[in-house]
Amino acid sequence: MENGSVNHEMETTSTITIKGILSLLMQNLDENNCKRAIAEYLSCDLPYKLSCDDVFITSGCTQAIDVALAMLAQPGANVLIPRPGFPIYELCATFRRLEIRYYDLLPENGWEVDLDSVEALADQNTVGFVIINPGNPCGNVYSYQHLKKIVETAEKLKIPVIADEVYGHLVFGDNPFVPMGVFGSMVPVLTLGSLSKRWIVPGWRLGWFVINDPSCMFKNPKIIERINKYFDILGGPATFIQAAVPRIIEQTDNVFFKKTINTLKQTSDICWDMIKEIPCLTCPQKPQGSMAVMIKLNISSLEDISDDIDFCFRLVKEESVIILPGTAVGLKNWLRITFAADPQSLKEALGRLKSFCKRHTKLMQQQQQ
Amino acid sequence: MENGSVNHEMETTSTITIKGILSLLMQNLDENNCKRAIAEYLSCDLPYKLSCDDVFITSGCTQAIDVALAMLAQPGANVLIPRPGFPIYELCATFRRLEIRYYDLLPENGWEVDLDSVEALADQNTVGFVIINPGNPCGNVYSYQHLKKIVETAEKLKIPVIADEVYGHLVFGDNPFVPMGVFGSMVPVLTLGSLSKRWIVPGWRLGWFVINDPSCMFKNPKIIERINKYFDILGGPATFIQAAVPRIIEQTDNVFFKKTINTLKQTSDICWDMIKEIPCLTCPQKPQGSMAVMIKLNISSLEDISDDIDFCFRLVKEESVIILPGTAVGLKNWLRITFAADPQSLKEALGRLKSFCKRHTKLMQQQQQ
Repeated sequence: MENGSVNHEMETTSTITIKGILSLLMQNLDENNCKRAIAEYLSCDLPYKLSCDDVFITSGCTQAIDVALAMLAQPGANVLIPRPGFPIYELCATFRRLEIRYYDLLPENGWEVDLDSVEALADQNTVGFVIINPGNPCGNVYSYQHLKKIVETAEKLKIPVIADEVYGHLVFGDNPFVPMGVFGSMVPVLTLGSLSKRWIVPGWRLGWFVINDPSCMFKNPKIIERINKYFDILGGPATFIQAAVPRIIEQTDNVFFKKTINTLKQTSDICWDMIKEIPCLTCPQKPQGSMAVMIKLNISSLEDISDDIDFCFRLVKEESVIILPGTAVGLKNWLRITFAADPQSLKEALGRLKSFCKRHTKLMQQQQQ
Repeated sequence: MENGSVNHEMETTSTITIKGILSLLMQNLDENNCKRAIAEYLSCDLPYKLSCDDVFITSGCTQAIDVALAMLAQPGANVLIPRPGFPIYELCATFRRLEIRYYDLLPENGWEVDLDSVEALADQNTVGFVIINPGNPCGNVYSYQHLKKIVETAEKLKIPVIADEVYGHLVFGDNPFVPMGVFGSMVPVLTLGSLSKRWIVPGWRLGWFVINDPSCMFKNPKIIERINKYFDILGGPATFIQAAVPRIIEQTDNVFFKKTINTLKQTSDICWDMIKEIPCLTCPQKPQGSMAVMIKLNISSLEDISDDIDFCFRLVKEESVIILPGTAVGLKNWLRITFAADPQSLKEALGRLKSFCKRHTKLMQQQQQ
């Protein structure tokens, strides 16, 4: 972790006095209950029990990403990040002076990890292997078998897995959601998550960073102490939100979750069906989970649109529809479309997208259609 | 700031695409309104107007401290921190690999800054000068004249002032609260604050880091961009709390603030009066603001209590009263007492403190009393 040693005397006093005395105060009670609730929630899907000490509360999943990378960073280290992926990883890795090595996801293969390229990229300085499942931006959900292969690769390379599961349980395709922590006894898994997606409270900034390491291959009291010390600086989520977490986690009815899944299934179907009607766009993989999907853009079929960024700017200007250019997530001339919208608005937006594409398609292309 | 350069291509795409497109989304509207409200609130007491660009929203004042130090940190740099002070400064400075140089506050002089020692401590590697006013843990409120002398010293040494004003406006003595930003045209002032104290919402984690630099001696677009980029990683406060800030700031009645001040005046008086009745304790300066006061402990008059830490542990065990030992804030054999409690509980606690002290006072001392 990128920190110096704390002044010894201050450390002793902090340990004995501030923590010893302040642990009597209410604030830590809320935090402990929050950790306990998250540990119990995640343990339901694991073959072992997490303890409160394995759980750290973060200001959303973004901060969990930063903590994971900060914890692993050391001079000369590199980290494996998926492409396409989530841009915050690049930001945090660069900030922590970690060299970024991109490994590819294979669109023709359900966006699975190109494990051969992972093995080629890793070396003795590789400190982490980021996996986003369910996938953002691709909408993929990995099978148990593929997750196991990922872990076997990590085990062989002796690197911990950073499992970004912020879209955990948001799956509506063939594969069930399998938390990477299930394989925690094979490699240490650092699981990142938050309330934001599954409970649909974006902006509440209640996330977690969890160490899945039942065999203690990785964690030890010193590492835990350093993480705790880092959290003293960070601030963290509002205490009253922490206090609400046990109730949120324990008392949200399954009906609520089912409703979200059904809506996402419906809107992902709308997305899939309507994209098929647009000739310059191709969707290699029907979304299986999360809230977004990657669409390939056939630039050569379009008149005077130079690339995906140009496409998206023109789309905003001409149709008031916002789509993220694939360059922002690592794939030039692709588009990232989110289907987390009400069906009516989504249909409207995709209808305008279709008009825009038609309008900009080269005449020759149009005649062929 | 301790960050590497962002990959150029990603930086370009982030700048143009993500920010350009996402700035259309609601989330930034709440953030902008929040910044605007804080800028207007602080500008009321300044001889210039702050803009939204000068304001950064943090997860409480703790994160504001970390951002301020992170921004100034560079290899070989040192920062001037008051003693006694607030322990988070040591934690953050150490984490950011800043050398800490303590300057003394003078108890015999209303806890004013020992400016001679500041000049002796500073050198060409000094990057910041932390001032906490109103003071924590000392309860002092600096006069305009003393603040001006502090700024003149900073100006002479060419170092920005980090003005921790988390207890801003919580004053009930002779000196009014003067924000350090008033002198922002003489030296750059980085003002830190939050909702927590004045609005009595501890744990809401809504703080701010503000650049008071109307003459642009310090800030430039590149620095602002780097701070913004750092904030992309941080996460920040819950968005719905940010959305509430304009209303909180603009619509809290002055009656509420007066009531808090009156209560603190009353409880600080109780503290002052009751401490005077305890022979082994001395309060050099009646509190003028904030929520705490430093009390000198005459250890030699006590039987079998070795120091302030021992004193506080025994007090918790024997009387269930929590007081922070001065060692935790940089002054051994002193005590930090908070008077931010209801008068009844405070009297009860101080009564028990008195009994405890009497019980542990050496027999010879007792006979003299």
